[in-house]
Amino acid sequence: MTSHTEQSAVTVLGLGPMGRALAGAFLDAGLRTTIWNRTPGKDRELVERGALGARSPETAVAASRLTVICVVNYDAADAIVRRDTVTDALKGRTVVNLTADTPDRARTTAAWAAGHGIGYLDGAIMTPTPTIGTPAAVFLHSGPEELYREHRPVLDALGGTHTHLSEDIGRAAAYDIALLDIFWTAMAGYAHALAVARAEGITARELAPFAKGIGAILPPIFEQTAEEVDSGRFSDETNPITSAVSSMAHIVHTSESHGIDAGVMRAAEGLARRVIGLGHGTDGFLRITDILNPVRPEL
Amino acid sequence: MTSHTEQSAVTVLGLGPMGRALAGAFLDAGLRTTIWNRTPGKDRELVERGALGARSPETAVAASRLTVICVVNYDAADAIVRRDTVTDALKGRTVVNLTADTPDRARTTAAWAAGHGIGYLDGAIMTPTPTIGTPAAVFLHSGPEELYREHRPVLDALGGTHTHLSEDIGRAAAYDIALLDIFWTAMAGYAHALAVARAEGITARELAPFAKGIGAILPPIFEQTAEEVDSGRFSDETNPITSAVSSMAHIVHTSESHGIDAGVMRAAEGLARRVIGLGHGTDGFLRITDILNPVRPEL
Repeated sequence: MTSHTEQSAVTVLGLGPMGRALAGAFLDAGLRTTIWNRTPGKDRELVERGALGARSPETAVAASRLTVICVVNYDAADAIVRRDTVTDALKGRTVVNLTADTPDRARTTAAWAAGHGIGYLDGAIMTPTPTIGTPAAVFLHSGPEELYREHRPVLDALGGTHTHLSEDIGRAAAYDIALLDIFWTAMAGYAHALAVARAEGITARELAPFAKGIGAILPPIFEQTAEEVDSGRFSDETNPITSAVSSMAHIVHTSESHGIDAGVMRAAEGLARRVIGLGHGTDGFLRITDILNPVRPEL
Repeated sequence: MTSHTEQSAVTVLGLGPMGRALAGAFLDAGLRTTIWNRTPGKDRELVERGALGARSPETAVAASRLTVICVVNYDAADAIVRRDTVTDALKGRTVVNLTADTPDRARTTAAWAAGHGIGYLDGAIMTPTPTIGTPAAVFLHSGPEELYREHRPVLDALGGTHTHLSEDIGRAAAYDIALLDIFWTAMAGYAHALAVARAEGITARELAPFAKGIGAILPPIFEQTAEEVDSGRFSDETNPITSAVSSMAHIVHTSESHGIDAGVMRAAEGLARRVIGLGHGTDGFLRITDILNPVRPEL
């Protein structure tokens, strides 16, 4: 390991499931990997695999030109990197923050980093821990492109595809938020569908094959409708929003007739009815994007 | 056409986009097809293709042993078939109702049919109009299995896969409701994600490729989690519901900081927080199924 230069070294702060996966991928790629976690004992297996367990975060970050941090949220990240000793040790080095939080937090963290002479990139990991180090991993990055290019060789050790989205430091978090919005809303829909199905004597295993079929039609619809949403010109719809609210009302009625809360669908139905009330009933369902955010950017 | 027996004949009531697709598929399969629609003029193209345009619903249903009805909802269907003249003409014949509505409406319609000596099957069409007559079409049926078997040869003319789910007449509508619940909730999530993305300067076309990636991970998750939901035994989760609410809070915060309504996600987050409040924070997200419907059926 002593043959490695500091250039091909990396520090990983945070050894939860994702942090351990990241450190493991760096090790597998042959990088000198220094690790630290707030609560001790999480580094054992990685140290056995060759990682250097640091005694403190300041010694950890001092060991590499690049520090990758992945903890539960930015409050947790700040509690580590904004200690004076750690901030001092980071001066002139670079942090890639793969912690999930909001675009605003990414922006305030970037301002803090700039004020202390610390290079800062913000990233989002869009795939679960088992994908790390494999071609299936998806990473999004934002921040100064030159800094990104400088550290890309180290980041590539994590496998998968890396996309630099924008110099806007909040962009990776914004994608992360939008994509998790789709994911968790869809999962809430699945849970609700399973509850209604259960009330009708249908098990999850019975519904699942058909649910898979519904899931499979979503990606092409996401793609096909994107242009309409950007342009605001909805084509002559075979599935107008008036038809969608009819289905939604049936879902709410069936759900509530079984005593099952339908708050998620009621909220969605309310948006759709507002679109109709504004005179756009023949438009497609995604017209509700304009209800939610009427400020259309210039394209 | 005169060589056809009444046995290989079918009547289609309702000539909206889906009704026309159904009638067209029957014609393409060489069945003697009689058609009727409440408002005139919708039958022209089908008549040119060989359909028999009936002057009234009672003459339409009298022309075939099997009548398929597909209108906007059961109120519209009732307004046709529950006219005394039509009910009388249907006696001893069979109706397959492919209209979408609730399981309760299917059950009350079956009771009406039984009271008038009319055979009754209820169905749901799970795929859009262009699939009708092709292998991609998906039809779900419920009601007396013997009646289903008798008319299956005619239904097969619609192409695709036909599944008889249950003798419970409401079962097809229940699947339909549950599957549309997944679909429209996911679409509401996509619309919201696009609104948040727009506020962050990201166009729908920019987000769409990544949204497709999120959509693609849903079907395997739907399948993998079904057994846990049925059994109520959630495995040691790498993605506990405490982690999900952290993401959901970030989504709500980012959304509302841009003035974007987050009612759908707030409703979903509330369910997840109730699961945690009840002491199941280490379970997977789909534990909310039990919050929505605590009455677990015997498996």
